[in-house]
Amino acid sequence: MNQKIQLYYKNVFTESVGAEHGISPDELDELKGPIAELTGKMEQARKRGVVSGAGDTDRRIEFDDIPYRDLPYRNEMMENVRDLAGRLAGKYENLVVLGIGGSALGNIALQTALNSPMYNLRSDRGGPRLFVMDNVDPTQFSETIEYLEPQLDKTLFNVISKSGQTAETAAQFLTILQLLREKGLDLTDHIIATTDTKSGTMRGIVDRLGLTSLKVPQGVGGRFSVLSDVGLFSAAMCGIKIDELLAGARDMDERVRNTDVMKNPAALYAAIQYLFYRKDKRLSVMMPYGYQLKDLCDWFRQLWAESLGKEKNLAGELVNVGPTPIKALGATDQHSQVQLYREGPNDKVFTFLQVESFRSEVVIGDAGDTKELSYLSHRKMGDLINNEKLATEYALLASQRPCLTVLFPEINACSVGEFIYMFEVATSYMGGLLGIDTYNQPAVELGKLATFALMGHKDHSKMAEEIEPMRKPDEKFLI
Amino acid sequence: MNQKIQLYYKNVFTESVGAEHGISPDELDELKGPIAELTGKMEQARKRGVVSGAGDTDRRIEFDDIPYRDLPYRNEMMENVRDLAGRLAGKYENLVVLGIGGSALGNIALQTALNSPMYNLRSDRGGPRLFVMDNVDPTQFSETIEYLEPQLDKTLFNVISKSGQTAETAAQFLTILQLLREKGLDLTDHIIATTDTKSGTMRGIVDRLGLTSLKVPQGVGGRFSVLSDVGLFSAAMCGIKIDELLAGARDMDERVRNTDVMKNPAALYAAIQYLFYRKDKRLSVMMPYGYQLKDLCDWFRQLWAESLGKEKNLAGELVNVGPTPIKALGATDQHSQVQLYREGPNDKVFTFLQVESFRSEVVIGDAGDTKELSYLSHRKMGDLINNEKLATEYALLASQRPCLTVLFPEINACSVGEFIYMFEVATSYMGGLLGIDTYNQPAVELGKLATFALMGHKDHSKMAEEIEPMRKPDEKFLI
Repeated sequence: MNQKIQLYYKNVFTESVGAEHGISPDELDELKGPIAELTGKMEQARKRGVVSGAGDTDRRIEFDDIPYRDLPYRNEMMENVRDLAGRLAGKYENLVVLGIGGSALGNIALQTALNSPMYNLRSDRGGPRLFVMDNVDPTQFSETIEYLEPQLDKTLFNVISKSGQTAETAAQFLTILQLLREKGLDLTDHIIATTDTKSGTMRGIVDRLGLTSLKVPQGVGGRFSVLSDVGLFSAAMCGIKIDELLAGARDMDERVRNTDVMKNPAALYAAIQYLFYRKDKRLSVMMPYGYQLKDLCDWFRQLWAESLGKEKNLAGELVNVGPTPIKALGATDQHSQVQLYREGPNDKVFTFLQVESFRSEVVIGDAGDTKELSYLSHRKMGDLINNEKLATEYALLASQRPCLTVLFPEINACSVGEFIYMFEVATSYMGGLLGIDTYNQPAVELGKLATFALMGHKDHSKMAEEIEPMRKPDEKFLI
Repeated sequence: MNQKIQLYYKNVFTESVGAEHGISPDELDELKGPIAELTGKMEQARKRGVVSGAGDTDRRIEFDDIPYRDLPYRNEMMENVRDLAGRLAGKYENLVVLGIGGSALGNIALQTALNSPMYNLRSDRGGPRLFVMDNVDPTQFSETIEYLEPQLDKTLFNVISKSGQTAETAAQFLTILQLLREKGLDLTDHIIATTDTKSGTMRGIVDRLGLTSLKVPQGVGGRFSVLSDVGLFSAAMCGIKIDELLAGARDMDERVRNTDVMKNPAALYAAIQYLFYRKDKRLSVMMPYGYQLKDLCDWFRQLWAESLGKEKNLAGELVNVGPTPIKALGATDQHSQVQLYREGPNDKVFTFLQVESFRSEVVIGDAGDTKELSYLSHRKMGDLINNEKLATEYALLASQRPCLTVLFPEINACSVGEFIYMFEVATSYMGGLLGIDTYNQPAVELGKLATFALMGHKDHSKMAEEIEPMRKPDEKFLI
């Protein structure tokens, strides 16, 4: 059995899905040059210490900053996190992450991938219960806090925000601060802030209150930050082997530096996705056959959407480009989405995630007198789910729908680290092929400002005047 | 405050999103006739007791059968479920639903919408913990069972399958049967089967073992069955007021029988979605601003995808039609998907779900010396999330992206019942406008047969020969 994750790409070609819906080896060949060039550019950017954009859009970062490609090599960072988690071990029953987007999705993904689905319910879980609060739903927030309140002295909050100005995280944080104060608890015992090392609202609060802090690395966008303090601390607290995560990522780094697209899984994945995007297959479905991998899809969904959904290319031309990532779960969504996937518009490319060997197995019970089910008797449940994956792929191919598979030998910290790094780098390649700035998110700004305006922030009163009339629905269009 | 859910549709018109991306009142007018006709057909079909298809595709059902439109009126059914749940109250610590697709998504959705997010962790929860096992991941299954094993005598399993032949549910069920037997527990105390009343594999097992059973109603597809025994039993066990669910659905039924599209929220929703589909906006994003509504989106995702994703229309012509439903969560996914939604291809229509009054509120803490955050001090968290919704809508409209909103006065059993019924009927209208059979799912069959074949089912050996060569990846395409 191969010990690394692998990309299987046979079923994207015309031979598998027909001339109209497949890609040809020649089309892939044409991308060899561009991919080699992108690989070279990324390597150079790493040496210069800049984010791997292109030309004028390179944003210089400070000397001691690290772009995401180098995170797996920051052993000191990893050891610092591990030591902190070690010192805190046994002190808390609950760890609550306050964060949103890139400050939450990676944390959730690691937990689901590497700990038991029953983790929070089990008494032998070997770490605090983990709650990631990545929203400002008052019902969810208050009922979670209500649950935690009797055990607040055994609860640690990890607030994650680079600036501290993210409205959702700030709102949660202020509420928790006040609650801890009301209970007479020492803030320094109950809050760890992951934030900018030098400036910003949260940095100011941290310094004023003397809180322990961890680093949001410079030059690394939130969606690329899971392998930094942002994602590693909650993982380490919950017993995940964060050194192996980074080892897996380093291992993948060796593979994705290859200038030959056919030997570089990240580049090849991006090249194939790019060719399908050009053929108007603009929906990219990721479908893991395994519960543990499901939240990695949400992490990927942010990475892909926010990095690649761009109005303009680097030349400043209007392109309105960007594949729409879609999460589906095998085998569950066979009973929900596959009807559409096979018979609806042929506008999707599918990426299955498949696990060869599961951490725990189940032997299916004996069917007894029920002859119709005897084919299941004493079979492994892992064989069933993997046969379902193959059956679904077969059915999709019968409808000329292209399919890729990422094969996990097993799910462990190492293979998850490989996966994360492969898809981060694939995103960089895809952005390069699309000719856009992969690392910014300009369109998010307007909504943030509008929220400030609607909340009565004094700096945004002019915008408030413009939006306020929308607040009350126009009865003419309400039924 | 209006006590019913409402549809707000102002921001789909050219006036809000421009001529290229909006619809005109005239276009909507043109659908008045077809909608009135569909409404009439559905009413007639209800009287005749047939599924509301069209012409030759009507599938006759038996005299005592009920299509989904009439489920809310089945008081006897509801009372039977409520009585059973009443008799079982207090006997179990855990309720485990074994089902998939339409036998799971509604159950999950009701639980998330109407019970606390901390339900399973709370000791005062007022019902058994609920686990819905809708997959055959061996890790998830075995670690859940491992958790339950010490308290198996306090655990009830509700297996839901019309035929009993669904591979995933059958595999889980056989495993549980064997486990209960090994533990010497009385099967009749620990299993309730929801299945066909007359025939099928599960019916046979139920009769042989003398199990208590509930009904999968005739003539109602899985994805339309949440308001039957299928969805109501687990809800009732967990303290949800199932009578109010049905009352809400009945209330909505009055509204969606209106032949005037402008007065019928289900018809209007479908008409608008149809017009956008014709304008090549084929992605339909549902974005609830509220944690409680998130799993209703997964329920809707099956309903919309499986009903509307069809290769052929009723005339037998190849159409490969079907909008792709997408779930996004507000405010969380503002930090994940909104960059793409605003700047990527303008190929989506957005449906927000908004809650006017939340079950629990949170007053945000005082910002103290942190002036940048003082705009949040002592504000309601519910105001923040609703302002975020409005801000996002404003930002999407600034990018000419059409938006709809379903307004919930509050989330309770009644409004959830309204919502479910409105979207079921909207699906029927949408299928009618697309001219397809809304109630079948022919494309799911091939994958099922292929799974049988790969699992060595003796009736499918010929197909197995065809697929088996795919099992081992071709090394040439593996990196």
